[in-house]
Amino acid sequence: MKEFELINRYFKGRGISRRDVNLGIGDDCALVTVPQNCQLAVTTDTLVEGVHFFEDISPRALGHRALAVNLSDLAAMGAEPTWVSVALTLPTIDSQWIAEFTEGMHEIAEYFNVQIIGGDTTQGPLTITICAKGTVPEGKALRRSGAKVGDWIYVTGPLGDAGLAIEARKQGINIDPTHLEYLNNRFDYPTPRVAAGQVIRGLATSAIDVSDGLLADLTHILEMSQVNAEINVESIPTSEAMKASLDFNKQLPFILSYGDDYELIFTVPDNNKGMLDLKLSQYGVDITCIGQIKSGNGKIELLQNGEMFNFEQQGFEHFTKEQV
Amino acid sequence: MKEFELINRYFKGRGISRRDVNLGIGDDCALVTVPQNCQLAVTTDTLVEGVHFFEDISPRALGHRALAVNLSDLAAMGAEPTWVSVALTLPTIDSQWIAEFTEGMHEIAEYFNVQIIGGDTTQGPLTITICAKGTVPEGKALRRSGAKVGDWIYVTGPLGDAGLAIEARKQGINIDPTHLEYLNNRFDYPTPRVAAGQVIRGLATSAIDVSDGLLADLTHILEMSQVNAEINVESIPTSEAMKASLDFNKQLPFILSYGDDYELIFTVPDNNKGMLDLKLSQYGVDITCIGQIKSGNGKIELLQNGEMFNFEQQGFEHFTKEQV
Repeated sequence: MKEFELINRYFKGRGISRRDVNLGIGDDCALVTVPQNCQLAVTTDTLVEGVHFFEDISPRALGHRALAVNLSDLAAMGAEPTWVSVALTLPTIDSQWIAEFTEGMHEIAEYFNVQIIGGDTTQGPLTITICAKGTVPEGKALRRSGAKVGDWIYVTGPLGDAGLAIEARKQGINIDPTHLEYLNNRFDYPTPRVAAGQVIRGLATSAIDVSDGLLADLTHILEMSQVNAEINVESIPTSEAMKASLDFNKQLPFILSYGDDYELIFTVPDNNKGMLDLKLSQYGVDITCIGQIKSGNGKIELLQNGEMFNFEQQGFEHFTKEQV
Repeated sequence: MKEFELINRYFKGRGISRRDVNLGIGDDCALVTVPQNCQLAVTTDTLVEGVHFFEDISPRALGHRALAVNLSDLAAMGAEPTWVSVALTLPTIDSQWIAEFTEGMHEIAEYFNVQIIGGDTTQGPLTITICAKGTVPEGKALRRSGAKVGDWIYVTGPLGDAGLAIEARKQGINIDPTHLEYLNNRFDYPTPRVAAGQVIRGLATSAIDVSDGLLADLTHILEMSQVNAEINVESIPTSEAMKASLDFNKQLPFILSYGDDYELIFTVPDNNKGMLDLKLSQYGVDITCIGQIKSGNGKIELLQNGEMFNFEQQGFEHFTKEQV
C-alpha cells in the first residue's frame, strides 16, 4: 500500500469534522482558525515501542493511549483540545493492525471532539509522535508556576493503577482477574482529565498531569512556583484494585513515583474551595485533597498519620533508569 | 543526562524569542497568539535514520534538514513560519552530537525567525518529527487545488541536485569535487522557499513543494485541480553541477522523479505573469516557466523539443520502493 492510499483509507474523511478546520488532510499544510481572544496551546509527545509500550499492547489501546497522553497535557493547561497531527512510523504495512490502531485513535478523538488534521507516515521502528493543539481563553491557562503558600493540593482519580498494571505483567504479581482487567484498562486506555482541567481553570493556581509520578510532577510545580509541599500519604486516593492487591507499604512506589496515570495535580487557594467542590460535583469529577503548599524552594515533605517519613523519589526519567 | 537537563541545555533559552510566544518550553504546553485575520497553517514531517538519511549525515546537517523539510511545506502554502515543536528520539545521549544537531536546527530557525516552543525527548531508534506552525492571511493560502487551464507552470531553483548527491554516494558516480560539494550542500542543507511562497501568494493559483519528485508532486496539483499539464523537459532548470556530471538523458530521472530538492512548483494565470516577474526580481528569487496547464484529469504530457516522449514516473513513495 502506498502512503497516500494509507492516509486516505485510515485517516482522510474519517472521524469528526470541526467547523474551525478550513483545510484538513491532503495538502501541504492543514489550515485552522483559532477563535478571537483565545491563545493556542501546543504539546508534543512521542511513544516508542520497547520504551513506552511493549509489543503485546493491542493496536487499539496504542491508538487511544498515544492521543490520550497528549490530550492530558492540554487538560493540565485547562485548554480545550481541538486539532492533532499524527506522525506514524511503521515497520511494515499490516492493514489489520493499522485499522485497529486508527479505530482506537478515532474513538478518543471523537469523544473529545478533536480532529486529526494531518500527519506523516514513514517506514521504520514503531514510533508515534502526536502534536496536539487546543485553545484557551487569553491569560486563563493553568501554568506550573502559580502555586502559593497556603494553597491546597488536589489530585483527580486514584493514583498508581497504571504502574501496578505494568509490574503485574513484568513481575507476575498475583491479582484478582477482575481487578487486573480494571488495572490493564487504566494503563491501556487512560482518560485525559479534559473536563476537570477546564472546570478548575479560574479556580486553581497551578496544574500538571501525572505522567512521571506524583512526586516528580509535583516537584515541577514546586520548583516553578518556588514553594514546598506537605503531602499526607494516607490521603492519596487509590483504587479498590490497588487496595486489594498490595499492602500499603508496597503500594507507595506505585502511588508516589510510577506515573502513567494521567490524572491531574493542582493547587487551589482556600477561598476557592467551596466553588471548586460545587463545580466539580456538577460535572461528576472526583477530586481529593492530599496536602498543602508551604513556603520553601521545591521540596516535598511526606507525612504518614502526621509523622514525617522518607521515600526515595524515582520518577519516569528518560535515559536514566530502566524504561517502562 | 536527564531529559530535563537535556531540554534545558540545548533547547530552553536558546534561539530567538518571538513576541507572539506567551509561554515557551517548560510547561505542559506552549502558549502562542495567532494574529487576528490569520489562519494557522500546520504541517508535520518525520525523518527516520536509514530511510530518510544515513548514519554518515552530519548532525548539524540533520538538524537543518529536519526543520527545512517542514518549513518547505509552510512555504508551499504561502505561510509565514512562526513556531515549531521538536520530537527527538535518540538511541543514546551523545553531548557532542546533540550540540551539533541543535546548532544546525537553531541556525535555520533563527534565519527564518522561527521559535522552538516545545517538544519531547525519548530513547529509541534515531527519529526526528517536527510539527511546524505558521500563519497566513485568511483565505490567502496556496492550495493544490486551484490550477486552471491556461495557467503557466513554474519551478523555483534547479531540480535533481539532492538526488544526484545521494546517488553519487551510493553508486560512486564520478563528479568534480567542487560540484560534489555543491550537490552535497543541496541535499544536506536544503533551503525552504519561504520568501518565494509568500511573494507568489495572491498571484499563483496553486503550489506544492518538490519532496517526492517533480512528476509525483505536480500530479498532486493536477489531480486536486482536475487538469493536465504539458511540460517542456528541456526547460526544467538544472545546476552547473548536474550539467557537468551527466548526459541529458541520465539527468532525467533526477530532474523528473527523485525529489528531496524542496523547490516549489506553482501555477500562474497569464495575466499575473508580469507582476510575478517584477515581484520575484525584487526579492532575488529565480523562477523558470516549464510548461502549461491543459484540460484533463491529472495526467502529465512530457515534451522534448516539441515531441512527446515517455518516462516512467517513480516518486519517493514510502513502503513501495527502495528508500532513499
